[in-house]
Amino acid sequence: MSEIVTADAIKWDDRGLVAAIVQDAGTNQVLTLAYMNAESLAKSQEIGETVFWSRSRGELWHKGATSGHTQRVVSISIDCDGDALLVRVVPNGPACHTGNTTCFYRNLEATE
Amino acid sequence: MSEIVTADAIKWDDRGLVAAIVQDAGTNQVLTLAYMNAESLAKSQEIGETVFWSRSRGELWHKGATSGHTQRVVSISIDCDGDALLVRVVPNGPACHTGNTTCFYRNLEATE
Repeated sequence: MSEIVTADAIKWDDRGLVAAIVQDAGTNQVLTLAYMNAESLAKSQEIGETVFWSRSRGELWHKGATSGHTQRVVSISIDCDGDALLVRVVPNGPACHTGNTTCFYRNLEATE
Repeated sequence: MSEIVTADAIKWDDRGLVAAIVQDAGTNQVLTLAYMNAESLAKSQEIGETVFWSRSRGELWHKGATSGHTQRVVSISIDCDGDALLVRVVPNGPACHTGNTTCFYRNLEATE
């Protein structure tokens, strides 16, 4: 993990978004999958907390601005083809609006 | 993580895909972000190894079919709004085509 690249390495999709996996830097639990545009990424880096693009509301979404459950950004890495980010955070409360620590609190039924 | 749901809980996007975060079940390292359609999910559950939908090639992609670097599926969970999966795996080799353990081997430059 020694290579450092700039945001120019990001391949934004046709909506100007990139997928952002959010992972707890302490527990390594995967918390949520959200999306960023260039503005929300810049804002995340500026304030040191996660800011996403809400696809449902069509606006910037500073995680925790209302709930207090902010996520302090520890590091951001980018995948080999530049279309996904991994954002490692220290969360100040649950990631999920349901109150669960992670949004991935439901298991998919095995089919076998 | 006690709730169990069926694949009916998945909200497929307009391309019939759902994002699938792949995480090493042993180390908790996030390995890759890929996509599944209904067929690739069913196939993954059937054979117990990850099968994705390759957006670039437009075909099913049994991870490791060529390289041998398969990923045994341990569990699949789904997020609160049903548009992302978390697939926990035991990998048989590196996840990335570059030979890196994870596709997220590059850090994004801090802007501050």
